[in-house]
Amino acid sequence: MKLLRHGAPGAEKPGLLDHDGQMRDLSGVISDIAGQALADMSWLQSLDIAGLPVIEGTPRLGPCVGGTGKFMCIGLNYADHAAESGMQVPSEPVLFMKATSAICGPNDPIIIPRGSVKTDWEVELGVVIGQPGKYIDEADALSHVAGYCVINDVSEREFQIERQGQWSKGKGCDNFGQTGPWLVTPDEIDDPQDLPMWLDVNGQRMQTGSTRTMVYGVAHLVSYLSRFFTLHPGDIISTGTPPGVGLGFTPPRYLKAGDVVDLGIEGLGQQRQVCVDDF
Amino acid sequence: MKLLRHGAPGAEKPGLLDHDGQMRDLSGVISDIAGQALADMSWLQSLDIAGLPVIEGTPRLGPCVGGTGKFMCIGLNYADHAAESGMQVPSEPVLFMKATSAICGPNDPIIIPRGSVKTDWEVELGVVIGQPGKYIDEADALSHVAGYCVINDVSEREFQIERQGQWSKGKGCDNFGQTGPWLVTPDEIDDPQDLPMWLDVNGQRMQTGSTRTMVYGVAHLVSYLSRFFTLHPGDIISTGTPPGVGLGFTPPRYLKAGDVVDLGIEGLGQQRQVCVDDF
Repeated sequence: MKLLRHGAPGAEKPGLLDHDGQMRDLSGVISDIAGQALADMSWLQSLDIAGLPVIEGTPRLGPCVGGTGKFMCIGLNYADHAAESGMQVPSEPVLFMKATSAICGPNDPIIIPRGSVKTDWEVELGVVIGQPGKYIDEADALSHVAGYCVINDVSEREFQIERQGQWSKGKGCDNFGQTGPWLVTPDEIDDPQDLPMWLDVNGQRMQTGSTRTMVYGVAHLVSYLSRFFTLHPGDIISTGTPPGVGLGFTPPRYLKAGDVVDLGIEGLGQQRQVCVDDF
Repeated sequence: MKLLRHGAPGAEKPGLLDHDGQMRDLSGVISDIAGQALADMSWLQSLDIAGLPVIEGTPRLGPCVGGTGKFMCIGLNYADHAAESGMQVPSEPVLFMKATSAICGPNDPIIIPRGSVKTDWEVELGVVIGQPGKYIDEADALSHVAGYCVINDVSEREFQIERQGQWSKGKGCDNFGQTGPWLVTPDEIDDPQDLPMWLDVNGQRMQTGSTRTMVYGVAHLVSYLSRFFTLHPGDIISTGTPPGVGLGFTPPRYLKAGDVVDLGIEGLGQQRQVCVDDF
């Protein structure tokens, strides 16, 4: 199933995409794509999809998951990206946290912060936690996944790297985490480690990759992270980016107001963002 | 005013400490010490304290603030701690994020994660955001502060430093963020940059300090962080720790099950934690 959230920022309602590509409202079934509705998704089994209200027009899509407590990101998790960067693959996953206030809808603008000169893109596979857990065995890990989505892990490289340590400053700016359009439940994904992905800037292909070259796969990441803290419903793991980020070009290429970014992952939908200055 | 939250984890109710040291319930006035009740605290002005229900017995205290979206921490922010560590004072604040799932009550146990051998303590001044803002002038910054509190920024040094990059793994474990007992409103604090603070382990003084030696003060931090992202009501800034953490001893000293940690900041109350293994 492809779940979604529609409406104004902060007031999104739950919905889904039916088999004809029509959006339908789930407000009568669950209060949000969040919390208990993710921890126990049995409500999906008895759903009368054709009886759900059709959502008319073209509403704004919000992030496809609500109530996210942890926005965990994995660094340097694609073998080809590590090779391109001349860096070694890390001996265990590199974790950093994005501010949850960065999370926004898939087509919401990329807001270039005041003073930024190095705003960059990163297409990533997002993994959304359903059933909570801690010290999860790798063999059980995928049973804790509520679904998958596209994430743009927008990053300000000067803030991230040149501003005195730890990456959070350059990773958590407002609208630096486009999430969606759909939360795609695992039954629709044959193999999360075989998903082609891509990102264009102004129509020019920048990133081409596949989750096949991920160093630490989804099951390992869920298990690994759960050794450090309890994973809760709605928590997001953004699993790293393949080659082709702006920082990797010679000279580097960064986003400016007016640029248009398109990105997607096969089976998970696509996003489009226009870049705007933060005035 | 000293605000508090009482009750079972995840189901805390709002309350306050009256002038006689009696806890009283605020459930009839506000729904929580969170969100809009922090953004606009005018409800405090018209409060009939003597008419509020007395809270009988000795309930568990929860974290003194709810709905925290960002748990921001400042590294190496005490001049005497930097000197002790043989490290230079950073040229601008060092930011890292703690998982909000680490937040717990002031007297909740320190849970030593499985496999941990380097669980450490850090007494810190916590600053809770009230009125939201972005690009806040330093001159206006304190008007965005809803109050102050004690925080134990519990840290697993192996997870933080020796496990492949970025500090989040060692900072965000469950119950690694005791917060409270009180959220003390700014009118009760003459000068947030002149607060003595201390921490004992098993009755032995380990940390002694004062917010006087903070490198980047509260007003600067609020303004600085707001250049990177919008600050929201309930967001917490933990402002760094003075000398005396376990990592700084020769040889280092770490916590084990059964150890008792007491810590406090003048005017903000104190905390007591027992260390337990995570079985």
